[in-house]
Amino acid sequence: MKILIIGSVAAGTSAAAKARRNDESSEIKIYEKDSHISYSACGTPYYIGGSVESIESLTPRNAAFFKSKHNVDVFIRHEVLSVNPTEKIISVKNLDDGNTFTKNYDKLIIATGAKSIIPPIDGIDKNNVFSLRNITSAVIIKNYINANNVKSALIVGSGFIGMELAENFSSTGIETTIVEMKEHLSPKMDSDVSVYIEDYISKKGISFLTGDSVTRFSGGEKAEYAELKSGKKVSAEIFIIAAGVKPEITLASSAGIEIGTTGAIKVNKKMQTNFGDIYACGDCAESYSVITGKPIYHPLGSTANKTGRIAGDQASGGQLEFRGILGTGIFKLFDMTIAQTGLTENEARAEGYDCEVVHNIKPDKPEYAGGKEMMIKAVADRKTQRLLGIQIVGYEGVDKRIDVFATAITFGAKVTDLFHLDLAYAPPFSTTKDPVMYTGMILDNAINGKRKLITPAGLKETASNGKIQIIDSRVSSQYDKAHVEGAENIPHEKLRDCCDKLNKETLTVTYCNKGVTGNAAQNILINKGFKDVRNLSGGHKNYSMSKK
Amino acid sequence: MKILIIGSVAAGTSAAAKARRNDESSEIKIYEKDSHISYSACGTPYYIGGSVESIESLTPRNAAFFKSKHNVDVFIRHEVLSVNPTEKIISVKNLDDGNTFTKNYDKLIIATGAKSIIPPIDGIDKNNVFSLRNITSAVIIKNYINANNVKSALIVGSGFIGMELAENFSSTGIETTIVEMKEHLSPKMDSDVSVYIEDYISKKGISFLTGDSVTRFSGGEKAEYAELKSGKKVSAEIFIIAAGVKPEITLASSAGIEIGTTGAIKVNKKMQTNFGDIYACGDCAESYSVITGKPIYHPLGSTANKTGRIAGDQASGGQLEFRGILGTGIFKLFDMTIAQTGLTENEARAEGYDCEVVHNIKPDKPEYAGGKEMMIKAVADRKTQRLLGIQIVGYEGVDKRIDVFATAITFGAKVTDLFHLDLAYAPPFSTTKDPVMYTGMILDNAINGKRKLITPAGLKETASNGKIQIIDSRVSSQYDKAHVEGAENIPHEKLRDCCDKLNKETLTVTYCNKGVTGNAAQNILINKGFKDVRNLSGGHKNYSMSKK
Repeated sequence: MKILIIGSVAAGTSAAAKARRNDESSEIKIYEKDSHISYSACGTPYYIGGSVESIESLTPRNAAFFKSKHNVDVFIRHEVLSVNPTEKIISVKNLDDGNTFTKNYDKLIIATGAKSIIPPIDGIDKNNVFSLRNITSAVIIKNYINANNVKSALIVGSGFIGMELAENFSSTGIETTIVEMKEHLSPKMDSDVSVYIEDYISKKGISFLTGDSVTRFSGGEKAEYAELKSGKKVSAEIFIIAAGVKPEITLASSAGIEIGTTGAIKVNKKMQTNFGDIYACGDCAESYSVITGKPIYHPLGSTANKTGRIAGDQASGGQLEFRGILGTGIFKLFDMTIAQTGLTENEARAEGYDCEVVHNIKPDKPEYAGGKEMMIKAVADRKTQRLLGIQIVGYEGVDKRIDVFATAITFGAKVTDLFHLDLAYAPPFSTTKDPVMYTGMILDNAINGKRKLITPAGLKETASNGKIQIIDSRVSSQYDKAHVEGAENIPHEKLRDCCDKLNKETLTVTYCNKGVTGNAAQNILINKGFKDVRNLSGGHKNYSMSKK
Repeated sequence: MKILIIGSVAAGTSAAAKARRNDESSEIKIYEKDSHISYSACGTPYYIGGSVESIESLTPRNAAFFKSKHNVDVFIRHEVLSVNPTEKIISVKNLDDGNTFTKNYDKLIIATGAKSIIPPIDGIDKNNVFSLRNITSAVIIKNYINANNVKSALIVGSGFIGMELAENFSSTGIETTIVEMKEHLSPKMDSDVSVYIEDYISKKGISFLTGDSVTRFSGGEKAEYAELKSGKKVSAEIFIIAAGVKPEITLASSAGIEIGTTGAIKVNKKMQTNFGDIYACGDCAESYSVITGKPIYHPLGSTANKTGRIAGDQASGGQLEFRGILGTGIFKLFDMTIAQTGLTENEARAEGYDCEVVHNIKPDKPEYAGGKEMMIKAVADRKTQRLLGIQIVGYEGVDKRIDVFATAITFGAKVTDLFHLDLAYAPPFSTTKDPVMYTGMILDNAINGKRKLITPAGLKETASNGKIQIIDSRVSSQYDKAHVEGAENIPHEKLRDCCDKLNKETLTVTYCNKGVTGNAAQNILINKGFKDVRNLSGGHKNYSMSKK
C-alpha cells in the first residue's frame, strides 16, 4: 500500500502518524513545498512578540524525526504540481534542483492548508506590507521589525491573528492601530460582545477604526501611510494584512476534486473527496456544524489535527469518522480572554431559531479569593430548549467555561441540564454555583419559568414602539450616576411597598447592575400579578457597554 | 403558607431565597443556632493562612440582608429543640434569653449541616487541640496562632480541609506535620494518585506520617506532643483534628425522620424525607451517585447550594428534582491542583466494573507557551465503554479538565466521544489536541484498538506470575539512569530492525517516559505479529512515582 500525503503542517503529519500506527508495512510519503514541517502557526504571534523566544521551539520536528519515529519520508521543498485521480498518479517538482517526477499512490491525502486573503489594495506589494501565515513570514516580520526599529504598526483585520498580533506588537512598545471593515472588532462575534473587547483594547492604548478599510498604501518603496475609505490616513512603519485565510484548493480543483459551498474541498465524514481514494483534511477541507449539520469553513489547528488523524485512519483501513465542529475559538488579549463556541445570536437567528438570549455577568471565583467578572452571552433555542452557542469575555477561567459549554452542547445539552452539573468547587477555582450553572438557571427561568429577559437591543426597539415602564432596582446613588433612559428608581428593598402605584398591565422592564436583583424585582412584580415583566439581560453594566 | 427552615449556611439560605422567588406571599423563617449565616466555610483555611484578610469577606450577608432582599426572617442563636411531624410543629429555644417557643409549619426544610468527626483520643480536650468547621472555629484558631506565636502544627487527617490547612499553615511559616490513618494522603483518591501529592508536599517541606494515628495528646493544659500508634511522638504548638465530618442528624433522627445507609438523612429526588412536608438538604442529607444510582454522602458547599435550591423550589410548589452528583472535588496545594470526579479505580472495581485504566501525562499547553505536565488517571468500563471517573494532579488547567470530564460523564460519555470534542485551542490555553482528548484516544485504543495498557501495579503482579519481556523504548542515556526492573533497552528508532530477536509469543510490555513512544513501540510490535503487547500506563515517570 502506498499512501501519499500533500502538505506537512498539522493535518498532513497527523495523517501520516496515524496511518503508520495502524499499518507498519505501508509506504508513507509526504510532499511539502515549504521548508518547515509540523510547526505551530498559532504560536507565531508570540514569537513576534517575544514571549516565544526561539523560532525552533515552534518547529520541534523535522524530516529526520518522522523517518526515525514513524518510518515516514518527508520531502520538503517538493511541490505537487498535479494530481491525476484516474491514473492515481501525482506529479512533483523538487524546488531545489528543479526536477519533476511522478509518483503513483493507492491512497492520497490532500492537506494543502490555507493561505492569507490578500485584498486587491493599491500598494499592497510595498516592502513593509506583510501577512502572517507561517514560520517563514513570522521570521520575515520579526526581522523587519528588529532591523528597522519599528515603532508603529497598522493591522488590517481583527480576527484571531489580527488581535493576537495587536497585543504582541503593543506589548513590545509598538504603537498599534487596527482597521476593521465590519462595524465592530472581532466580527465573528455578536456586536454586543465585541463592545467589551473594544472597551478593553482602548484602555490598553490600541487604536482601532471600524467600518472602514484601506484603499491604498501610499509612500515610496515602503508604505508610509494607509489611505482609508473614510478619507482618513494612518501612518505606520509596518502594515500587516490579517484579513483572514482561504483554503488552498488550486491543486485539488484542477484535478476535478469537488469544492464545497464554503469554497473548501468537499469531504464526507470519512474525509473522502468525490474520489474514494483521495482524502482531504485540515485547513483546505470543509467542516460541518455539530448544531446545524451544514457545511462550515472554520480553519484551526485543533480541527486540522483532528481531521488529519481521521484521514490517516481511513486511508490505512480504520473506521474513525468526523463528527463535525462547533466552531470553538479562543484568544488572549493581554489579561483578557475571549472565547466562543456554537452559534452566535446572529447566526442562530439567520438559521431561523427562536432565540432566548442572556448576558450573564459573574465572577470566575469568590471575590474574597480574587475573582474577576466575566460576561457570558448565551443563546438557546426556545423550542427545543437546546443550548446553541456561547460567547465569553473575561479574565480568568474563560477557557474552562467555554470548554464545559462546548462539551455540553456536543451532548445536546438543554438549558435545564447546566444547573445539575457537578462541577469542581473550591474558592481558588469557582463560586459555589459556577457561572456555567447560573447561565443555565437564567435561561431555564426565561424559557420555562416566565422570567423573560430583554436585551439592551430589544429594550431599545421595544421602547421606541410603545408604552413601557422601566424600573431601576438599584440604590439611588447608583441610579443618580447613570441609568437607562426613562427608568424610574425603585430600590429592590422598597419595591414590595411601592408596586401598587405601578401599572400591572403595562410591559415592565426591571434591572439592576448585572441582573440578579433585577430578577428578584421581576419575581416580586410577577408574583404581585404584573402581566409582562422582563429583566434587562446583564443589567445596567451590559446596557451601558452597549451604549459605547 | 408557612415555610420554616432549620439552618442558615449554604443550603438553608439557598432554600429560602428560591422559595421566595417562587412565592411572594409565603411566610419564610429560618432558625440558626450559630451567630453566623450564609458564610463560606470553604474559605476559612485561607482566612487562617491570611490570603483572605478579613473574616467579614466570608460572611457577606446578615439577617437584615435576607429581610430586605427576600422578606425572609432569619433568627440567629435560635436552636430548634424538636420537630413534631404529626402536629407539624417545631420547638425553638432562643439561646440569648433562654426562652422556648413553638412554631407551626406547612413545609419544613432541615439544613442542619455537618459536624467535625472528633475521634475519642485521650487528651483531645486540651486547649490547643482544635477542629475547623465554621467561622467561629476559624477565628478561634487564627487568634490562638497569633496570640501564641505558633510555629509548629500537627494536622490529623488529610482530606480537603487537612491539606488546605497544611498549605496555609506552611505558607505562614508554621512547621507542619500531617498524620493520616490510611496508607496514603488524600485517601479518597487512588494510592497511585496520592503518591504524586506526597512527592510534591515533601518537596514543599511538609512532613507527613501515613498508616499511623494519634493515640494521645500529651502535656499539661496545652498538649505538647501527640503520641502515635507507631510509638512515635510529634511535638507541636497547635493540633488540628481534620478527620472529616458527619451529618448533623440528631434533631431529624429523634423526630422519626428516616436516616439512610450513609448515616445522613434519606431523601428522594424532591429532597423530601419520609414525611412529605419535611425536606432535608445540604450536608445533613444524603446524595446519590450519577454513575451507580446508589446513595453516597459527599458533603460540599456546591452540593449544599444545589440541594437547598431544590428543597426551596419543591417546598414552594416547584418541580425541580435532584439528579445526583459525581462526587467532584478539587483542592489547591501551593502551586499544585488536585481534582477528582466520578469513581476512583478502587471504587469502580468494588462496584464490579471491568476497568480500563490509564495514566495520561501531558502538558496543559505547549511547552513553548509555558506548559506544565499534569497526570490524568482515567477509569472506564470496558463493557459499556463509559467513562467512570477521573483523578488529576497538575499545576495549571486542572480545574478546566476536571469540569470537562465531569460534564462528559454526566452526559454518559463513552471513551470514543472525547477525541471528537471541539475544545478551545490557542497556545496560551491548550495543546492542539487537549489532554482530555488524548485521554479518550488512549482509552479507545486500549478497549477497541487492541493497544492494551498495563498499570505499574499490574506489571508488578504480572511480572511475579510468569514470563514477560519488557522493552524500554527510550534512548540509552535515560535507560542507564533508571529503568523498570528486568527491562531491555531497545530505543524506538531501532525497534523495527531489532524486533526479530524478540519472542512474539511472550507477553511483552513496552514503555517510554510518559507513554507516547511506548505506544508507538507497541504499535510496531503488534503490527509485526506479536501476540500480546501492553504499554505501561504513564511510562517510566508514573512507574517511578509508584516506587516512592
